[in-house]
Amino acid sequence: MGHDVNTVGILCSAASCPAKSLAQEIAEWIAARGRRAWVHETDGREVTADGLAQTDLLLTLGGDGSILRAARAAAPHGVPLLGVNLGRVGFLTESDPTNWQEVLGRVLNGEYWIEERMRLRATAWRDGATLGQAGALNDVVVGRGSRAYVVHLCAEVDGGFLASYVADALIVATPTGSTAYALAAGGPVMPPQLRSILLVPVAPHLSMERPIVLAEGAKVRILVTDDRPAVLTVDGEVHAELESGDEVCVEASTHVSRFARVQEPTYFYRTLVTRLAPRNQFL
Amino acid sequence: MGHDVNTVGILCSAASCPAKSLAQEIAEWIAARGRRAWVHETDGREVTADGLAQTDLLLTLGGDGSILRAARAAAPHGVPLLGVNLGRVGFLTESDPTNWQEVLGRVLNGEYWIEERMRLRATAWRDGATLGQAGALNDVVVGRGSRAYVVHLCAEVDGGFLASYVADALIVATPTGSTAYALAAGGPVMPPQLRSILLVPVAPHLSMERPIVLAEGAKVRILVTDDRPAVLTVDGEVHAELESGDEVCVEASTHVSRFARVQEPTYFYRTLVTRLAPRNQFL
Amino acid sequence: MGHDVNTVGILCSAASCPAKSLAQEIAEWIAARGRRAWVHETDGREVTADGLAQTDLLLTLGGDGSILRAARAAAPHGVPLLGVNLGRVGFLTESDPTNWQEVLGRVLNGEYWIEERMRLRATAWRDGATLGQAGALNDVVVGRGSRAYVVHLCAEVDGGFLASYVADALIVATPTGSTAYALAAGGPVMPPQLRSILLVPVAPHLSMERPIVLAEGAKVRILVTDDRPAVLTVDGEVHAELESGDEVCVEASTHVSRFARVQEPTYFYRTLVTRLAPRNQFL
Amino acid sequence: MGHDVNTVGILCSAASCPAKSLAQEIAEWIAARGRRAWVHETDGREVTADGLAQTDLLLTLGGDGSILRAARAAAPHGVPLLGVNLGRVGFLTESDPTNWQEVLGRVLNGEYWIEERMRLRATAWRDGATLGQAGALNDVVVGRGSRAYVVHLCAEVDGGFLASYVADALIVATPTGSTAYALAAGGPVMPPQLRSILLVPVAPHLSMERPIVLAEGAKVRILVTDDRPAVLTVDGEVHAELESGDEVCVEASTHVSRFARVQEPTYFYRTLVTRLAPRNQFL
Repeated sequence: MGHDVNTVGILCSAASCPAKSLAQEIAEWIAARGRRAWVHETDGREVTADGLAQTDLLLTLGGDGSILRAARAAAPHGVPLLGVNLGRVGFLTESDPTNWQEVLGRVLNGEYWIEERMRLRATAWRDGATLGQAGALNDVVVGRGSRAYVVHLCAEVDGGFLASYVADALIVATPTGSTAYALAAGGPVMPPQLRSILLVPVAPHLSMERPIVLAEGAKVRILVTDDRPAVLTVDGEVHAELESGDEVCVEASTHVSRFARVQEPTYFYRTLVTRLAPRNQFL
Repeated sequence: MGHDVNTVGILCSAASCPAKSLAQEIAEWIAARGRRAWVHETDGREVTADGLAQTDLLLTLGGDGSILRAARAAAPHGVPLLGVNLGRVGFLTESDPTNWQEVLGRVLNGEYWIEERMRLRATAWRDGATLGQAGALNDVVVGRGSRAYVVHLCAEVDGGFLASYVADALIVATPTGSTAYALAAGGPVMPPQLRSILLVPVAPHLSMERPIVLAEGAKVRILVTDDRPAVLTVDGEVHAELESGDEVCVEASTHVSRFARVQEPTYFYRTLVTRLAPRNQFL
Repeated sequence: MGHDVNTVGILCSAASCPAKSLAQEIAEWIAARGRRAWVHETDGREVTADGLAQTDLLLTLGGDGSILRAARAAAPHGVPLLGVNLGRVGFLTESDPTNWQEVLGRVLNGEYWIEERMRLRATAWRDGATLGQAGALNDVVVGRGSRAYVVHLCAEVDGGFLASYVADALIVATPTGSTAYALAAGGPVMPPQLRSILLVPVAPHLSMERPIVLAEGAKVRILVTDDRPAVLTVDGEVHAELESGDEVCVEASTHVSRFARVQEPTYFYRTLVTRLAPRNQFL
Repeated sequence: MGHDVNTVGILCSAASCPAKSLAQEIAEWIAARGRRAWVHETDGREVTADGLAQTDLLLTLGGDGSILRAARAAAPHGVPLLGVNLGRVGFLTESDPTNWQEVLGRVLNGEYWIEERMRLRATAWRDGATLGQAGALNDVVVGRGSRAYVVHLCAEVDGGFLASYVADALIVATPTGSTAYALAAGGPVMPPQLRSILLVPVAPHLSMERPIVLAEGAKVRILVTDDRPAVLTVDGEVHAELESGDEVCVEASTHVSRFARVQEPTYFYRTLVTRLAPRNQFL
């Protein structure tokens, strides 16, 4: 049984009329059930809603991208998220426009559980000074700049040399991110309850090719070793331009992302084959 | 600092003259340092040496295959292993014929540490009765019989359906096994200190293709769903012939395999690139 | 426009009642249209029907396996094949039990075209003497024996060393075979009209991993370099047991397999995504 | 035996002192042997040397990138190329600073052969008007813009739909390009004498994943189907920014790239394993 949900925040894109209209409809539906609801229109970038600390549930109307942005804002406050999928693919969302009333009704009744998912914390450094810090639910990516052909990187784990990469990018992913960009780059699938860190190169050229699974406590350090520019991307959004000698340190965050779930705890495995196996599969 | 090593067991293949001669040389070298040593010649299959429970260190002279067999015998007693590599590839061995005196000298001086590696326990079932049980340091494999083209399997995790496979085999591997057969089949690399379970299909045909990393506590059940015969292989040795309807259950063992190490704890990462990256690598 | 079809041979499995019954139904349907039809029941192994040389079209009732066997018998006579799919997967079949009348009707009217597909010829040698020869529409595979862990092979192309393999198997495939076992082993897709030869290792262990596409005229020689037994499989059927020192030579056959087609010539690409892409694909 | 070589052009980077000095040394060495030599300093972008039509051999001092640029200029005139490798990886170069005298000496003596390698021709279209045209020795790539996460593409072959891609990029490569970017993206190896076209997606997300080998005559059409910007790159250099609805048509060029070779014709296979197989390989 989940905690009482008295205040629900609803995030929707300011640019989407259907999302804004649905947000209003949901807010009224919640108010009619005697709970508080607030709606916040986002600009598609950063979520900066006040009152998150006093919110018991944060609804996102959109796709996985909306959840990633909301999760960044919610993580320090531990507010549980629930995604209503208006996008094309929803690995993270729990409901859609056809069933949100049923799902939300169960949550308001306490018939839900909280799934905690590991986050990463990335810090970029130049000449001993920090260029910035960011949290990730999916992945931290050091990739080639727009015009460069490849990026040259050196990766260390726990202070020891791991491998040199000449590649399009090196992905450091959470288990949640294992079904996002890391999957496209050839990585293994990891269920969300794992707390391992996944390293996957994108299009490695005569370099270490295999994905590597690291323990939860691993500290990964990525060094840009070539004067071709690199780009640091966190959960799909560009975070910094990097130069030769810059470093990115990645480790498990002290924050987690929390999701309100009404599906069975085994939902991840159940939907995996539907999503990933070929259409014309045997059996 | 490791425990005192007073009694050393030495395993060598009865079929290998160089191994038997080296075993004798090592035994005398140990005796000259005031410790007890015994030599046991194995037949290349099962290790059944008495007195394992009173042994402080078990030396194997051979390759990774020798260690896998010795590890099976040593696991119930928790005896640490140390491999002298006489084979072609030694992911598990700690020394070779050129440096065993230095390595063994350090171990006798207590200058070593114990690395614990997860083991799997596999149980095969037919009609509700067990066909047998075995422990694995590398992997448990359900594969096609000698003449069948493929095997049809259904895999469950923690009681829930995971995927159907039409493939040459399905590998359930430990982190140790991630650099053995699972690597050849396309799996990710996992450092030995992890305690996850790795699922990798071999040559999957229009089936779920991606390796899946499971949590340590996961219970995997593999069901033979077709009347083509299947074979259960544990650490590379055939354990049982399976029929349609037979099941194999795999989970983390309560035993671990213990290794005496004199290398730095980061040795795994240091040697990884040397072993796996292309020869003509950039940088 | 295809040639006139005056005599149709129909192959069905002696072990399958539905297939035998459908064969009779089709034979009568053909006779009612003034053409000759004969039915031959096969034992699921070799097709040895007399009168193939006087047959204008050979129907197979079954899956791709039935076509592979029929193709072997038909190749020396150049008889076109048409598969009615009673199996699970039919990459090679042209019709199924619901539409055979329409498809066959068009063929009898000459509204069809002939697709020619490259075949391979494999010859196995021991001590300078041939162990046997066989033709393949899909693939020639040198793989590990039933109990051996891996097979050690050396591959040459046109008399020059190519690579050493420690693997479960090495597949030499035609473009037709590129969507069969070679696909499961990680190979690329090749449309049937290509005449290249595809080399794909299965589960290569610290060996050359990449598939290699060779020109039509390439002569591939595979040498068993280890005393572990190997097995030569041609189109999925065991052809010979191999020992250390045995060789298998593979090259394009002088025969082709001919298929009667009523689908558009681009049918291969049209069905590819349906078969191979994930179910939950974007777009 | 190759044709007489009376005039040798030498290309070197204006930015590299060692290259300019070596160019001068080679020019004098050639003049001392009674042949004509000219040196042209390039700016690292386009090669625009006059007198190419009257040149019998074009030397490049640099890596594979230098050859790709020189090949573009040489292709219309059919001038053979010979690369002296000053770079890190030289799949295309024939000599290096330690052996250029021996290699060039053999070429001046006519002891060489000409290797012809297929080129691609790419044409980009917007609203029925061409955005530009370019030739490629390695590959034509339609990829995501610098900030976009993925690109959405639709690929057709010979006028028929092939597949939709959501990916970092789609590579259309020649056999020469099969060991460049396409290899990093997971493609098969194709020897240079083949004339097939290779299609490989980079990091495909829930899309068709397998590389596809097309016949020489295939016409590939790639359509940008999403309003995220895309970039057309030809042989590693950005050629055009693309918008939704833009098309790129790729087919075999009427030009080939010609290389002067002194190595055995089987050199490609001989060096393949050295370059691609793991360092610690078995056997």
